[in-house]
Amino acid sequence: MQGTMQDRPLRLNHFVERAERYTPSKLIVSGTATGVEQRTYGEWAERTRKLVSVLDSLEVPPEARVATFAWNSARHLELYFAAPCSGRVLHTLNIRLFPEQLTYIVNHAEDDVIFVDRSLLGLLTPLLPSFRTVRHLVVMDDGGEAPNPEGVSVLNYEELLSAAEPAEFFLGDENAAAAMCYTSGTTGNPKGVIYTHRSTYLHTLSVLQADSIGVCESDTVMPVVPMFHANAWGLAHAGVATGANLVLPGPRMTPAALADLIVEQRVTVPAGVPTIWMGVLPELKGRDTSALRTIPCGGSAVPKALSEAYREQLGLPILQAWGMTETSPIASVAITRSWLADLPEDELADLRASQGPAVLGVELRIVDQETGAELPWDGSTRGELQAAGPWIASGYYNDDRSADSFTPDGWLRTGDVAVMTPDGYVRIVDRTKDVVKSGGEWISSVELENEIMAHPAVAEAAVIGLPHPKWGERPFAAVVIRPEMTLTQAEVLEFLSGRVANWWLPDEVVFIDEIPKTSVGKFSKKDLRDQFADHVLPSD
Amino acid sequence: MQGTMQDRPLRLNHFVERAERYTPSKLIVSGTATGVEQRTYGEWAERTRKLVSVLDSLEVPPEARVATFAWNSARHLELYFAAPCSGRVLHTLNIRLFPEQLTYIVNHAEDDVIFVDRSLLGLLTPLLPSFRTVRHLVVMDDGGEAPNPEGVSVLNYEELLSAAEPAEFFLGDENAAAAMCYTSGTTGNPKGVIYTHRSTYLHTLSVLQADSIGVCESDTVMPVVPMFHANAWGLAHAGVATGANLVLPGPRMTPAALADLIVEQRVTVPAGVPTIWMGVLPELKGRDTSALRTIPCGGSAVPKALSEAYREQLGLPILQAWGMTETSPIASVAITRSWLADLPEDELADLRASQGPAVLGVELRIVDQETGAELPWDGSTRGELQAAGPWIASGYYNDDRSADSFTPDGWLRTGDVAVMTPDGYVRIVDRTKDVVKSGGEWISSVELENEIMAHPAVAEAAVIGLPHPKWGERPFAAVVIRPEMTLTQAEVLEFLSGRVANWWLPDEVVFIDEIPKTSVGKFSKKDLRDQFADHVLPSD
Repeated sequence: MQGTMQDRPLRLNHFVERAERYTPSKLIVSGTATGVEQRTYGEWAERTRKLVSVLDSLEVPPEARVATFAWNSARHLELYFAAPCSGRVLHTLNIRLFPEQLTYIVNHAEDDVIFVDRSLLGLLTPLLPSFRTVRHLVVMDDGGEAPNPEGVSVLNYEELLSAAEPAEFFLGDENAAAAMCYTSGTTGNPKGVIYTHRSTYLHTLSVLQADSIGVCESDTVMPVVPMFHANAWGLAHAGVATGANLVLPGPRMTPAALADLIVEQRVTVPAGVPTIWMGVLPELKGRDTSALRTIPCGGSAVPKALSEAYREQLGLPILQAWGMTETSPIASVAITRSWLADLPEDELADLRASQGPAVLGVELRIVDQETGAELPWDGSTRGELQAAGPWIASGYYNDDRSADSFTPDGWLRTGDVAVMTPDGYVRIVDRTKDVVKSGGEWISSVELENEIMAHPAVAEAAVIGLPHPKWGERPFAAVVIRPEMTLTQAEVLEFLSGRVANWWLPDEVVFIDEIPKTSVGKFSKKDLRDQFADHVLPSD
Repeated sequence: MQGTMQDRPLRLNHFVERAERYTPSKLIVSGTATGVEQRTYGEWAERTRKLVSVLDSLEVPPEARVATFAWNSARHLELYFAAPCSGRVLHTLNIRLFPEQLTYIVNHAEDDVIFVDRSLLGLLTPLLPSFRTVRHLVVMDDGGEAPNPEGVSVLNYEELLSAAEPAEFFLGDENAAAAMCYTSGTTGNPKGVIYTHRSTYLHTLSVLQADSIGVCESDTVMPVVPMFHANAWGLAHAGVATGANLVLPGPRMTPAALADLIVEQRVTVPAGVPTIWMGVLPELKGRDTSALRTIPCGGSAVPKALSEAYREQLGLPILQAWGMTETSPIASVAITRSWLADLPEDELADLRASQGPAVLGVELRIVDQETGAELPWDGSTRGELQAAGPWIASGYYNDDRSADSFTPDGWLRTGDVAVMTPDGYVRIVDRTKDVVKSGGEWISSVELENEIMAHPAVAEAAVIGLPHPKWGERPFAAVVIRPEMTLTQAEVLEFLSGRVANWWLPDEVVFIDEIPKTSVGKFSKKDLRDQFADHVLPSD
């Protein structure tokens, strides 16, 4: 028996039509290299429709990839919707990728056109000869200064737009591709995820729920998280869908500039990674932050101390959200459940430092990697975290490596090791590849690193497992000492004892100048492992 | 180009699985004829799974209709999910329908089994011989008293459940039928709408948005609106999906009993029709209502005076929501947009007395009935209100009358006449069938009625159009005078002059004992028209 309900596809077109019809006077503020620009949603929607005409006139075919290499801005937001709403596919390029990775993904996605901020043109120009499918380069003048590359035909965004007429949107299947994003994986080439209209629409609805981030029309949302990074956590879409004012910082990414935007624009929901919030907090001291409602944070684990520092200074803890490129990205949000609200502040802070319960629509489970059996939610059993839901990836675009990342029943293997509390909070303890397997038991490299980094003389620390004849693997710590301080292995081990189980103590601590990093600034354990591939642990 | 996202159907199963996994200790409180019962979501979910086994053991086939004739209760909520999550179709019977309407819809829907509250059994027993397809009658003991009907095999709900084992849910297509509900139309037989898993899932997500009702886990939601009436406005589903505590009043529907539940259960979101709130307000006087967060109200237009009385007494105005059985039902909610928040209180009260902007996902338009052209949102142009969206009906179940209610491009014709303000607020001024067409201009019967009812001596007033040789139609008012008061036509007309345009003044005012009502208590203009079918307006 079929229903008698209308067959209306969940397409992103609806969000633009809402903005132009219901909230045309609400504002999109964009930071530029030289200041701040402002336009209304009404103006933005008209420009977005003109951009559809531009894509038509450039003869960008249906389903072709429209790449962006840009800061967060109203123009970037025009591309966010003009591409999918006209039947093309937005491809956001991560401006922080290594050159060879950029070349790989532009060619792998077969990008047809690239829209680039002038302030970023210098990063792209040297790579242009390596791009095999790109027919057009369109420059967006954002106050930055860079000459057009020689010998390449360059189009100007504003000139194209001023010559164009607003167009109707394309109507199609909700399962059509809307956008793609490549993971900045720590091993091998990046892998591409293709979001659909349906998946992004549903993900946006999730962001609007009160038990998630609860974006609404009266908010002023500032995604500091880049728009090239996993849909800017859905916040750009949420802004358009609700008509919330958007503040897009563009290249104004210094802590002082971000603090100014928060205060001057009366931002209610600023969102970014922990390092951003570490920098911004001192800049907010003594200023009027009364408009702030919630501060979503993700990308890497939020240190409890950081969240508590916000709570102490601003009266507002950080709201940790968790996800990955493959999960659109928001899969869980560390809201405080009503029955836990009366816990002591310190326990509440621990809850807020977890990854939180899965948002409605997403299913999470932990699984024994050996047997594939689901593990109990007892707060201590560790297993691989797996995810399912309508905005979770089922594979990678045109990539042989897909099979390894998904289970036979179609769940995403996140590659994280986690415990689940009886209240349904996820607590990620490590990456599956990074746990140290010692005598059949797991040692969390992340927990060891956190404990070592609590030592006042330690700037950075990374722990990997190295082969051991008896235990299989044993932990090995690489530590960077703070300038003008000293530290020995014995001091590290003494500091750790009592903080971790005795059998967790690293077999060796070495001191190095810097932990190798990935293109997005995370520790690269892969490079560290390569560096110490031939190292032999002391045999004591 | 297709996406790489998981193909996960939007099914109601997910809401139950959330409740049992994430919020098993949250509460469902049910009023009974004799008191109040309480169970947890964990217990409720297990019972819901047992109920699936019961339906299996009763050999209720896939897609068969499982009818309910019940008050709001945890048991009714078990049926709400056990039927659709096992591949059957829930059919909520409106206990206030006339007997012949009930017989019609039970036979039209071909109900296989009826679950009935014992306190309502007396209404159903006389009709049993007229039901052609019903194989089982299951009685739910709710503290009410009524003997089992003679000569009919009656099953007991709790006995069936106690003998059953929890079952797995059925997994199927998101477009499969989940539930059906018949409109209590004012003309002809009721018409059936079939909701799908998808439409109800998406409607629920709408209810969770901060710009709609914003139900979240920390709420305590009390749907006074009956669960047999258009999905209880999505609030029962929203409760299960979020784990909000639910308070289901059962037969405890007196104003005093409802006020007790609000105060004692610390309800944050009670929802019901205007007449409910008229009765409850005095009962709340001087009591602790500090838990209240918002008071959604719909079903018929919310009088501005009622909303203001709530604001004055409780500090919280009523939140008007608008919709109909065909719209799942929530299509618009009269939230206050941020740019209007500084209007004077009286203008805000006017906004709150409108039907509000369409919720995200729903499209509304006003259309010229003659030409089919869309009309401007200027706050004054009137047209037929039409609706589109994934939880709006596209037709009626097995009904020849479907064609009249939908446009060629698939929009629902609501039958309402409305204006749209430039800010996107809908203001319904009349039913299309009830406007008086005088000399090519429209006179709103509803506005005339409201003005007449503002006279202190008027208890009820209804206005219809009667034939007029020169103007086509002219307004005719039927008025019920309050007990022990007097009123003349001249006094009514004098009262109206200055309040409405002169050419709106009724050609005749008659005084009658009672305005005829429909089964759900609305004025029946159809019956009034029948009553005055041969009446001739004075010719002056």
